[in-house]
Amino acid sequence: MRLLEERILKDGKVRPGGILKVDGFLNHQMDVNLFMDLAKQWHDAFAGDNVNKILTIEASGIGLACIAGLVFGCPVVFAKKSKTKNIDGSLYRTRVESFTHGNVYDVIVSRDYLLPTDRVLLIDDFLANGAALEGLCDLVEQAGATIVGAGIAVEKSFQPGGARLRERGLRIESLARVKAMYDDGTLEFDD
Amino acid sequence: MRLLEERILKDGKVRPGGILKVDGFLNHQMDVNLFMDLAKQWHDAFAGDNVNKILTIEASGIGLACIAGLVFGCPVVFAKKSKTKNIDGSLYRTRVESFTHGNVYDVIVSRDYLLPTDRVLLIDDFLANGAALEGLCDLVEQAGATIVGAGIAVEKSFQPGGARLRERGLRIESLARVKAMYDDGTLEFDD
Repeated sequence: MRLLEERILKDGKVRPGGILKVDGFLNHQMDVNLFMDLAKQWHDAFAGDNVNKILTIEASGIGLACIAGLVFGCPVVFAKKSKTKNIDGSLYRTRVESFTHGNVYDVIVSRDYLLPTDRVLLIDDFLANGAALEGLCDLVEQAGATIVGAGIAVEKSFQPGGARLRERGLRIESLARVKAMYDDGTLEFDD
Repeated sequence: MRLLEERILKDGKVRPGGILKVDGFLNHQMDVNLFMDLAKQWHDAFAGDNVNKILTIEASGIGLACIAGLVFGCPVVFAKKSKTKNIDGSLYRTRVESFTHGNVYDVIVSRDYLLPTDRVLLIDDFLANGAALEGLCDLVEQAGATIVGAGIAVEKSFQPGGARLRERGLRIESLARVKAMYDDGTLEFDD
């Protein structure tokens, strides 16, 4: 069994409504030594792909992305949630629908920090419906940069995001793939 | 001259209204190798203080805090902006006034991740009016934990936050202290 899966079994909690609570080590309190191990797994997966930039989305992707940046030796950019208008055309902007929070929000990246020459690895803590990851892909495409792939910590493979994005050709390396969660608080991983 | 001050002179931009734009390396695109150097400076400053937890606030403090967590060898917690009510008493909550954005917001930390036995180092990218840092202090005090001090990247020492919090007894280690910014785009550091 893989490292992150073991940790989820040990410290994660399954809540009604398909919620997996991992805020003790992943997205509220953060075990940065675990993050270093996860970053090395992504580096093994994308070695030789000449990643020169990492892109994530605020807030809970930032910690993972920064430690991945150390391992890949490249700068990290985070897409910001924004309510301001793009008056001067200095931004790339996309809309993301949050199924967890039931709202839609805009995220932006400055044009200065995504360049056509960039080979971008996307990093996020969760992949479920795929809206956030799709938004990041859109930002990279607007910049004319290359998407190398996506490094995800926890994928809920019973939700449609992963399948839809892989079908579009996105390479996704998820370090734990949850295929089912049950009312008795247990869960199953993909093989 | 100190490392971060050199970088601010090289890549920072002074904008009208007391705005220092450092989003090319600090709080939008992030130079994680620089972050490692800053984290080591905080570690030198707080060596022997038995820090066992780092607390920051979303979003732009998270990257610095996570890399500091690697150097200090301890977990990192980020206070989350929240609109939900604290129905079950499982959270510490405080209000933070943003002078930059002209609004007030609540931040929360789960009671599970701030313990009375914790010796907490606060980390943030900016200190100006001190509202965010004061909010973090309030959260640690609610938990009955010990505040070891604060590691700040850029302090605007011409704004009142640093002086007010030091007067209250908070130890603050700022790695660049801007004492004045001018309309011609130049700035001065404290000695």
